[in-house]
Amino acid sequence: MRIHELKPKPEEYSYVFGGRAPLLSVKPGDVIEVSTEDCFGGRVKSPSDVPSQVVDFAELNPVSGPIEIEGAEPGDLLAVHFVSIVPARAYGISCTFPLFGALTATHETAMLHEGLEERVWFYDIDLESWTAGFKAQSKDFSLRMPLDPMHGTVGVAPASGEVRLVVTPSTYGGNMDTPEARAGTTLYLPVNVAGAMLSLGDGHARQGEGEVCGTGIESAMNSVIAVDLVKGGASAWPRLESDDFIMTTGSVRPLEDAFRVSQKELVDWASQLTGLDTLDAYQLVSQMGLAPAANVCDPNYTMVAKLPKWTLNEAEAYGGVHKRLRSLAAEYGTLKL
Amino acid sequence: MRIHELKPKPEEYSYVFGGRAPLLSVKPGDVIEVSTEDCFGGRVKSPSDVPSQVVDFAELNPVSGPIEIEGAEPGDLLAVHFVSIVPARAYGISCTFPLFGALTATHETAMLHEGLEERVWFYDIDLESWTAGFKAQSKDFSLRMPLDPMHGTVGVAPASGEVRLVVTPSTYGGNMDTPEARAGTTLYLPVNVAGAMLSLGDGHARQGEGEVCGTGIESAMNSVIAVDLVKGGASAWPRLESDDFIMTTGSVRPLEDAFRVSQKELVDWASQLTGLDTLDAYQLVSQMGLAPAANVCDPNYTMVAKLPKWTLNEAEAYGGVHKRLRSLAAEYGTLKL
Amino acid sequence: MRIHELKPKPEEYSYVFGGRAPLLSVKPGDVIEVSTEDCFGGRVKSPSDVPSQVVDFAELNPVSGPIEIEGAEPGDLLAVHFVSIVPARAYGISCTFPLFGALTATHETAMLHEGLEERVWFYDIDLESWTAGFKAQSKDFSLRMPLDPMHGTVGVAPASGEVRLVVTPSTYGGNMDTPEARAGTTLYLPVNVAGAMLSLGDGHARQGEGEVCGTGIESAMNSVIAVDLVKGGASAWPRLESDDFIMTTGSVRPLEDAFRVSQKELVDWASQLTGLDTLDAYQLVSQMGLAPAANVCDPNYTMVAKLPKWTLNEAEAYGGVHKRLRSLAAEYGTLKL
Amino acid sequence: MRIHELKPKPEEYSYVFGGRAPLLSVKPGDVIEVSTEDCFGGRVKSPSDVPSQVVDFAELNPVSGPIEIEGAEPGDLLAVHFVSIVPARAYGISCTFPLFGALTATHETAMLHEGLEERVWFYDIDLESWTAGFKAQSKDFSLRMPLDPMHGTVGVAPASGEVRLVVTPSTYGGNMDTPEARAGTTLYLPVNVAGAMLSLGDGHARQGEGEVCGTGIESAMNSVIAVDLVKGGASAWPRLESDDFIMTTGSVRPLEDAFRVSQKELVDWASQLTGLDTLDAYQLVSQMGLAPAANVCDPNYTMVAKLPKWTLNEAEAYGGVHKRLRSLAAEYGTLKL
Repeated sequence: MRIHELKPKPEEYSYVFGGRAPLLSVKPGDVIEVSTEDCFGGRVKSPSDVPSQVVDFAELNPVSGPIEIEGAEPGDLLAVHFVSIVPARAYGISCTFPLFGALTATHETAMLHEGLEERVWFYDIDLESWTAGFKAQSKDFSLRMPLDPMHGTVGVAPASGEVRLVVTPSTYGGNMDTPEARAGTTLYLPVNVAGAMLSLGDGHARQGEGEVCGTGIESAMNSVIAVDLVKGGASAWPRLESDDFIMTTGSVRPLEDAFRVSQKELVDWASQLTGLDTLDAYQLVSQMGLAPAANVCDPNYTMVAKLPKWTLNEAEAYGGVHKRLRSLAAEYGTLKL
Repeated sequence: MRIHELKPKPEEYSYVFGGRAPLLSVKPGDVIEVSTEDCFGGRVKSPSDVPSQVVDFAELNPVSGPIEIEGAEPGDLLAVHFVSIVPARAYGISCTFPLFGALTATHETAMLHEGLEERVWFYDIDLESWTAGFKAQSKDFSLRMPLDPMHGTVGVAPASGEVRLVVTPSTYGGNMDTPEARAGTTLYLPVNVAGAMLSLGDGHARQGEGEVCGTGIESAMNSVIAVDLVKGGASAWPRLESDDFIMTTGSVRPLEDAFRVSQKELVDWASQLTGLDTLDAYQLVSQMGLAPAANVCDPNYTMVAKLPKWTLNEAEAYGGVHKRLRSLAAEYGTLKL
Repeated sequence: MRIHELKPKPEEYSYVFGGRAPLLSVKPGDVIEVSTEDCFGGRVKSPSDVPSQVVDFAELNPVSGPIEIEGAEPGDLLAVHFVSIVPARAYGISCTFPLFGALTATHETAMLHEGLEERVWFYDIDLESWTAGFKAQSKDFSLRMPLDPMHGTVGVAPASGEVRLVVTPSTYGGNMDTPEARAGTTLYLPVNVAGAMLSLGDGHARQGEGEVCGTGIESAMNSVIAVDLVKGGASAWPRLESDDFIMTTGSVRPLEDAFRVSQKELVDWASQLTGLDTLDAYQLVSQMGLAPAANVCDPNYTMVAKLPKWTLNEAEAYGGVHKRLRSLAAEYGTLKL
Repeated sequence: MRIHELKPKPEEYSYVFGGRAPLLSVKPGDVIEVSTEDCFGGRVKSPSDVPSQVVDFAELNPVSGPIEIEGAEPGDLLAVHFVSIVPARAYGISCTFPLFGALTATHETAMLHEGLEERVWFYDIDLESWTAGFKAQSKDFSLRMPLDPMHGTVGVAPASGEVRLVVTPSTYGGNMDTPEARAGTTLYLPVNVAGAMLSLGDGHARQGEGEVCGTGIESAMNSVIAVDLVKGGASAWPRLESDDFIMTTGSVRPLEDAFRVSQKELVDWASQLTGLDTLDAYQLVSQMGLAPAANVCDPNYTMVAKLPKWTLNEAEAYGGVHKRLRSLAAEYGTLKL
């Protein structure tokens, strides 16, 4: 097993997908230990640091990468398995941000209202109990929330030479902000350029579905990922696989189009895996599918569509790459004990 | 315990909410055994009955009711507890319907495409194994899906003298098509007219989130409900409560507005229950909330927002009416043994 | 020429489409002199009358009617020609209304903002110069705007026994709020019930496209309309015809669906009138069509699609009913001199 | 007067905004004679050339540029005046394109339909009569449409180092596809990078509002533009000015957000020009504004909001730069006679 390490220096973080030289080059089957900054670039250090004042909008969501995957070519599918995602600091941060979030006027849903109050919540993070502590500000109310760490932003270089700010999720992945991107899950990304150029960041100690206020419990992370390639297997949109579900994503506006994309992707995938024709797969998804929101705040909204794997009658996605990566992760775990 | 029975004759079914005389009058705390027809009015009796030919669009989704709840007045909140929902026939039906569903052009999402093929799936329903049998039509592929019976359409008379076709979900409930409306759950509906005038129907033996193809496993039901009143407790939109979650709904178009309504309702409810101010409740919901789609095919789309009850620090909704109705349901169960 | 008069008493105004007995019965080819109240029911009498305090939401937009058109049957198309629309009072009123309008959070586009300030503008209306006087409130700024009177709300009884609040536009017409509904224009409405049951109101001395703040220059009107029937000619959605344009409407949410409906209707109409197939008509509309917003504030948004009649190569809609009604209007004008 | 010429060689066309070295450098007040290719890169040469087969999606809409404007800095506003736009070939082309257009399923509005038939219409363009000839394909039907040439795609380099495919309109301009971008009009674009880096292309001999089928009468153009700078005058979104109207744009999805952005921009601009506060300007726009669709087919939809300049009580935008550019254009015209 080849194990790499990627710990970017402050000036090495990237704020875009595309157009950047790799910080690291790996091979399919390799494991990477990667550290990521929080979405504020670490600049919010206390509850009195007002995010909109200490961070420029274009410097939100620094990502670690790109990582070049040797042999990856346009048309391939990159499998990124999250071996582990562990908060790197003793605190996580959430906030409202002026004109950002699902329940406020925004720059796109333009209205005559002023932005909502900008408020910052500091969570203490306790790895022992695997919880984060919420403390309300309007009254004496606290709660320990279970950790469920994930990466909000994971993507590859876009097609056609585009360079995109990391805050936008799209066909190349990016800031999808789905809680499904947790340890034990494999994310599949279509490759657009030689080397794929994978970057990731925006860890959340946990996040509700929809990322309603615009932020999760933002947290720097120490993560371990394993990568593999499905040659010629490019899907139109990012997909995920856990032990129990195959999952598809759609990241566009409006939300019903994000829903439509994710559902059509799931119908197509189920059809490919089972040999059912489109209408039969449509029926299967209609009765057995789940449809949680991922984010309804980013420049594109993301919906996820999920189908239990047991409904596929033994079919296995991409030649069982998820299972192999799970084994690799287990092996890595054993090594590190 | 007063137990009523409502088994409408064919000509007694209703196709609208509002403007109808009650079929039955009950008191808060009463239990009603109610039979409901399937969404096709029972007219699809074999796979060769083409729904769009045997059922008129305006006669889809017959509902049983209205049931008058004595003492209910505008401004009250009606609590409808689903004691049990059991498929009444040995089969359930799903189909594609021309220009209806999430992945097709529709009368509103108007396009130049012809409608998709109309296909009918007959499921055998086995109460013993509590499963429904899916048989694909394009190849030899079958699957036994677990039953998870629910009512797609439950509502009261609208405000302001409106009379609405049952297929539209809105503030008065209606065709929300959420799988959360299952046995063990309490649905809360704001009362608009004296007596509330509750009707229900559109049973599904099960349904995926989003009701993607436009139909669940449509099934006549033998259901038992218990009703109660929260005087002066009217919410703006229907809400639900299970043993583990409080849930809110939004039924409008576009889907992001359905999402916004459901989330704002959940923030408001959490704020009322905990005493947190709006922004603190927004934060709580943002990190702990779930956001599944209910339907993305009906004249209004429905999103559901869910918050685990344990996060509310012991607060109890509406004076514990859900718990009382659960007890009543248990008592009813004992009676019937 | 048969000329009728409809001047409803205060208690005779209607707030719904459907479910009401006619105030008047007329024949195709008849002319009706009708007076309509403003959208506030005349209750806003000075700039200090705050609309949300003096008018209940369910009593906005009183309409005059219904008018029964003898011989009208489901499947027919009702032609309503606006002979003249003249403001009835020396003032018109516009206002912002809490949580209503295109640039504010609303009950559907639910957000955590408070409503915008409610402000009332009184316009003096001068029929001599055919202008309305705008006076700003934040500084000394005034403007005389040309009158362009129209009816925001014109509709018939809905299908399937529905009864709908007048504020919602839909397939049966209603509160479309398009400035195209001006004198000299014919509005076509599909008939759903025997007698059609036409009602109209919500006059605007003028209105910008989109009715952005939620109100035009609201004005009671003395109007003259002429009606005719196109037997069996029902369209799916309301249409309009002026001397220069055929026009279609779509009234749904989201706005792109209102656009799609209006454009598909125009493609279909152009195809019927010219004999072109769908794709050729699509091409014609794509290069020669106009697409103004009507309202982006009502419960359904309305888009209008317009095609110059000269592009139709002499084809005439509905056997020339618009031209005949124009002649009738001219004849009426001569009579009244 | 300094007059430049930009006639890109085939390999010099650009397919992105941002990240490219300038082909030409000019000063504020300069005039540029620029030739642009049609959206197919000239590859559709006869009705039998099927666009989706002869052109790659990523090579649609080649633009001429970038043109560096000396002295332009982030925060400035670039004024681009269209002196003249003249079709360069004796033909123009329109077509349907698989899964592209307003009345078809697309890659974002994902559905289970197949794409519509791909059909190509060749228009002959006659500069003498200033018309384009439409010939239907389903029957013998032809029409001469008046020319109204415009540029669909005009933009500058995006902010934050983004590089975007030319087909997407956004804050930096791009593929807005509004018929308002015609000769005699000034387009204002916010400057994001030193030199602004202006590119333009996608000429249409004419186009209906909404660009419903996805293409106008696509035409290579010989155009003349004049540029100027408003130092420190950057607006949030592109704006336009003609002799009679100030106009704003919004390019996002969904369509109601494009509408909201354009209307809020117009309210803000009217407020700045007149000194009215926001609500008074909202009122002015609500009664006097126009709201035509630009495109409802591109990756972002574009709405335009228009206000007659006479309503501004003599206020002049940006110190009268439009008037000065009109004079410059007249002077250029005299020179060329």
